[in-house]
Amino acid sequence: MKKIDTAQKALALHKKLGGKIRIMPAAPVRNRADLSLVYTPGVAAVSMHVAQNPKDARIYTGKGRMIAVISDGSAVLGLGNIGPLGALPVMEGKCALFKTFAGVDAIPLVLDTSPFAKASAGQARYESEIDFIVNTVLAVAPGFGGINLEDIAAPKCFEIERRIVEKLDIPVMHDDQHGTAIVVLAGIINALKVVKKKIETARIVIAGAGAAGSATAKLLHAAGARHILVLDRQGIIDKSRAEAHKKELATFTNLKGEMGDLKRALINADVFLGVSGPNIATAEDIRLMAQGAIVLAMANPTPEIMPDEAKKGGAVIIGTGRSDFPNQINNSLAFPGVFRGALDNRVTKITMDMKLKAAKAIAALVPKPTAQKIVPDMFDKRVAKAVAKVIR
Amino acid sequence: MKKIDTAQKALALHKKLGGKIRIMPAAPVRNRADLSLVYTPGVAAVSMHVAQNPKDARIYTGKGRMIAVISDGSAVLGLGNIGPLGALPVMEGKCALFKTFAGVDAIPLVLDTSPFAKASAGQARYESEIDFIVNTVLAVAPGFGGINLEDIAAPKCFEIERRIVEKLDIPVMHDDQHGTAIVVLAGIINALKVVKKKIETARIVIAGAGAAGSATAKLLHAAGARHILVLDRQGIIDKSRAEAHKKELATFTNLKGEMGDLKRALINADVFLGVSGPNIATAEDIRLMAQGAIVLAMANPTPEIMPDEAKKGGAVIIGTGRSDFPNQINNSLAFPGVFRGALDNRVTKITMDMKLKAAKAIAALVPKPTAQKIVPDMFDKRVAKAVAKVIR
Repeated sequence: MKKIDTAQKALALHKKLGGKIRIMPAAPVRNRADLSLVYTPGVAAVSMHVAQNPKDARIYTGKGRMIAVISDGSAVLGLGNIGPLGALPVMEGKCALFKTFAGVDAIPLVLDTSPFAKASAGQARYESEIDFIVNTVLAVAPGFGGINLEDIAAPKCFEIERRIVEKLDIPVMHDDQHGTAIVVLAGIINALKVVKKKIETARIVIAGAGAAGSATAKLLHAAGARHILVLDRQGIIDKSRAEAHKKELATFTNLKGEMGDLKRALINADVFLGVSGPNIATAEDIRLMAQGAIVLAMANPTPEIMPDEAKKGGAVIIGTGRSDFPNQINNSLAFPGVFRGALDNRVTKITMDMKLKAAKAIAALVPKPTAQKIVPDMFDKRVAKAVAKVIR
Repeated sequence: MKKIDTAQKALALHKKLGGKIRIMPAAPVRNRADLSLVYTPGVAAVSMHVAQNPKDARIYTGKGRMIAVISDGSAVLGLGNIGPLGALPVMEGKCALFKTFAGVDAIPLVLDTSPFAKASAGQARYESEIDFIVNTVLAVAPGFGGINLEDIAAPKCFEIERRIVEKLDIPVMHDDQHGTAIVVLAGIINALKVVKKKIETARIVIAGAGAAGSATAKLLHAAGARHILVLDRQGIIDKSRAEAHKKELATFTNLKGEMGDLKRALINADVFLGVSGPNIATAEDIRLMAQGAIVLAMANPTPEIMPDEAKKGGAVIIGTGRSDFPNQINNSLAFPGVFRGALDNRVTKITMDMKLKAAKAIAALVPKPTAQKIVPDMFDKRVAKAVAKVIR
């Protein structure tokens, strides 16, 4: 009932607003004198200066403050490949959050890749779609101070991000990967504190080897985790996998070459991180975990296991992506501050070290974590500032 | 002195602002309840609805209100090919004017086409650059209700616009062509009224066969003008020209096949329209024109002939693109209302008929034109409304 209510209310609000962001002039244009500075003839001097001194674009234009939130709509929320128009409400929402949480100006750009999707079948089509997305993002990049890639499906998201990062001298971040990884690490740091365990010895099981699962595994490893198992639908990932990003995961996870399903993986695990889909685990599965079990079930809106069920299985700390349970692990704890910091500190790449520091900064805002509170509130104004400070 | 002043003031203002537009959330996000409607989980219902009913994107997202102002920086103001960063201050200014004059939300997108400029030489490079710009604009189009192409050099602007118009079901307008044409026609309609001449019999000389000259010639022809000469650097254009857009001009201008330079063309002319560059005509040239000569010298900041000089040559009505002389013929009389109307009336293409009506609507706001006032003031709030009303 509540869910239907929210959906209907959201539809009504969106209809009333007709788009969730507005463009405002930074200075009023009231008369010819204003116009002569903001537009012709005065703007010519600014254009010439910026053309001759490209680095000054950050000072004299919006390049110093503007982020593009870009999606092809291929992996939107839990809804899948619903295309650019379906993605637009999410990207607009993200832009609204950028401003609300960190004062960052961000605009949504949703990409129509259908010419390539229709073109031809198989691997060739696929590669040209990646080329197409990369080329489009590079083409529109000059006016922006950063690029937030969003809701792009795995595995194409990995190559797309890698190639764009390589080519541009502004920060580029696929939030489904790194935003999620930062916030999850922050939660795990504090959750381990509560149960008095160390990340270096904790056995961590990640269900899901997509954008979020892969990036989180890497960041956990960088944070010191040495016992990580990542699972996809086929089970625990090992070196025998063919896909590039899974092969890469197998170089630093599952070092003993374990095989099996989620049940097998959860035996004696300290942390169960779900970044896959709804209802994949039961109380019985959680009962297989070690004492002081930590369960972060991130699938939205229906988690990998409902909190009640996880509790029944003996989980001590339970987090989800939802606002109606304790410990909401939401990307908006990370991305606004990451780009705020990147803009303020003129960062050209978001490094692993910055992501580690961001996670620690978020965790540090809850100095005495409890089972009911491992991460700060999303509306805690200190969060974006604390994150921004370490992105340098 | 005044010019230096304006330049320095403009630089100082741009430095202070750091970009001339700001992004604002359309609704506040104060708490979890707001968040659940604007973002997850409520937004999922909106995304699903829009994905399943693409036409409703105009209702539930910013597609119904958002215009992209897109440039590759290849023909910026009078400054030439100064690239995307150089173009950015102009595009931002345009977005500020869109909001100020017509309440239209517009964002600047400046395109880096350098991968293609560098790739290879000659015609092949050129064609791929057009492909690249067309593909990029088509790719980013889904989220927008209209596309304002800006400051793209001739002749590539013609093919780029034609191909984008053909592919998209939202209005697309290269403002350097059609915005200029609309405002110039409005000025000529009223100027001819003052000197009691008819457009059908008036001899009109257009110096400049670029974006503005070509589009204006076509719109004047559609408005009834039958004696048009268009000149480029080589002189009066006739059917012998090789370039496609000049060949096209020769099908409805210069029907007698006249040859010669500007001086030759101006003999007995009623209207001299300059859309080329600074200082190409003298008082002596103007003296060759018919009684009641109309001179619109649009090059900015330095016109084809300075107003004092044109007056000395006997011109009765003189207009420029500048704010410091009477009769400022500026695109901002047209483009805000054109896109306001296109959005409000769900127009999918800007037709010749709409452009004619827009010019007449602008002209009609000065019911008793004089030599000193042939077009309304840019800050006259009726202008955008009057234009918007006829774009349907």
